[in-house]
Order: sequence, then structure tokens, then C-alpha cells
Amino acid sequence: MELAIQRFCNEDWPDLWTMIKPVFREGETYPCDPQISETNARAYWVETPRATYVARTLDGEIAGSYYVRPNQPTLGDHVCNCGYIVAEERRGQGVASRLCLHSQAQALSHGFSGMQYNLVIASNDTAVRVWQKAGLEIIGTIPKAFRHKKLGLVDAHIMYKWLIDN
Amino acid sequence: MELAIQRFCNEDWPDLWTMIKPVFREGETYPCDPQISETNARAYWVETPRATYVARTLDGEIAGSYYVRPNQPTLGDHVCNCGYIVAEERRGQGVASRLCLHSQAQALSHGFSGMQYNLVIASNDTAVRVWQKAGLEIIGTIPKAFRHKKLGLVDAHIMYKWLIDN
Repeated sequence: MELAIQRFCNEDWPDLWTMIKPVFREGETYPCDPQISETNARAYWVETPRATYVARTLDGEIAGSYYVRPNQPTLGDHVCNCGYIVAEERRGQGVASRLCLHSQAQALSHGFSGMQYNLVIASNDTAVRVWQKAGLEIIGTIPKAFRHKKLGLVDAHIMYKWLIDN
Repeated sequence: MELAIQRFCNEDWPDLWTMIKPVFREGETYPCDPQISETNARAYWVETPRATYVARTLDGEIAGSYYVRPNQPTLGDHVCNCGYIVAEERRGQGVASRLCLHSQAQALSHGFSGMQYNLVIASNDTAVRVWQKAGLEIIGTIPKAFRHKKLGLVDAHIMYKWLIDN
């Protein structure tokens, strides 16, 4: 599947909200309130981050999205944090992997040197495998860090990749 | 040294700012902008957190302070994050240890089940030892996570303790 990955623009929001809303409602991968409002979701995914990208198939269907933001303030702002969501009907087709590699390139061009995920839910095997293939390593696991809607308290991994040679 | 540790009140701010300001300016332990303004420092240390505590000696001198806040939104908000600062002239006298134990008790009473520090600068041996004695474990180390003002890029530990029996 060919994908065009571009910077978010306002016209993307209705499709983007339709795609990310069920992921939040489900409460299995992101810690934000499962009942998050559209306004707060937009602030979280689009307005607060440094940048947000949207992937579409060549016929214009939304396939995925990610954001990139500094993971810490000033003295730690050379390491970014990202969040990724793939459209339900596009899962298992390599979209997450493509988004992740794209985000590493974009992170570099935004001036970041490293990438850190703070809360990769341990029950989300697929995500863990994809991020590992993209070069991120599990650097630690937080016991009982996430209240999974179906599984209750589950562990979460911290994953990390240094993006530049030095 | 006897200490009274109490919830922050507005009257504490001038002493608190005098104590925390040089720590931020120094750029060796907290990631926020070393030139952080008084207003932003107050927002960071006092207004954004769930609660802030101030320790004073029995003659009323400020000895230390800490904040406690949720480390993640809703589905991860049972794990708290804390930050601690000890007054320069009170260091090496067990204040950090006392603050840490106090914060664990307060975290429980605020409804938290776990405690996580996201960025314990690896060069800060004293802090690492004190937190370990208070029961926190290093669950991972982030390479080059912090731009130390004197040392350049240094690693940072993630430390964690589950606070309740289950």
C-alpha cells in the first residue's frame, strides 16, 4: 500500500478524529481519559505537540497519524516523544512501521537527537515488536503503570532510540 | 535536625523561590530552563502539581520542598511523580530522605498507588542513593537524556516504587 505522509492541516481533523476517537474510547493503549472530548483530543494530538503528521492512502483514505513533541523541558528537549495511531481497517499492513521511520526522520529535521516512548503498554505486543524493528529498545518496564480497560493493571515499557551518530 | 513538613501556603513562596531558584539556575538536576522566571517556577513547583510541601526547621528556616503530581493522565494517574529540592545549607543532613518518606505517605493519602521519577540525573549519585534507600528502584536508564550544564550529555535514571501491598 502506498502512503502519503504529510503535516497535519485543519482539513484533516474530521477524518483524524474519526480514526483516533475509538482508540481513546477503548482505553487499551493511551492513558488519556477514554471519554476525552473532541476539543481535548485535538489539543492533545494536534495543538500541544511540536508537529503532527497524517498518512493517507493514494485514494485519500486516512491510514494513520503521529505526533512528535519534546519529552522534557529545556535541558531534556533534545529527546522527543511520539504517539502513533493506525486506522483500524489498515492494521497489519506495515503502516505503524512506516509512521515510525517517518517520525525518526522528521524528529531529526525538527532538531531532536533521541526518541523516547514513556508508556508502551506491555500487552500491546504488536506495537512493541514494530518499535523494536524500527530500532527502539526497551530500556525499562514500569510495573502496573496502566489501568487497561479489559486487563486491569498492566505493565508498560519505556522505549528509546538515539537518532544520531556521534 | 527536627523538621516540620507542611502543605505549601502562599506565605511560603518567597523562601521557597529563594531556595529553588539557584537549583534551576545551576542546570544540573532539573530539566526546566535554567533561566526560568519566578512566575513559571511557581506554576511548575506549586500550581500545576496535585500538592506541594515545605519543610522547615523548628526555628522556621526553610530546609526543603517537594511536589507530587500524577505522572500520566487518567489511565495512568494512579502513579505519581515527585520533585524534591533541599536547601543548600541543609544538604547532607537527611532532609531528602525525610522528604521522600513523607511524600510516599502523602502520595498514598492522595490516592496514588505508585511513584515514578522520570529523570534522575545519573551524575547525581547522592540523589540516586537516597531514593534507593527509600525503596525506589532504578527500572531503566535513558542514555544522554539530559544536557548537564557542566558535564554535557548525561544519562538519566527512571526510578519507581509501588506503594501499596496487593
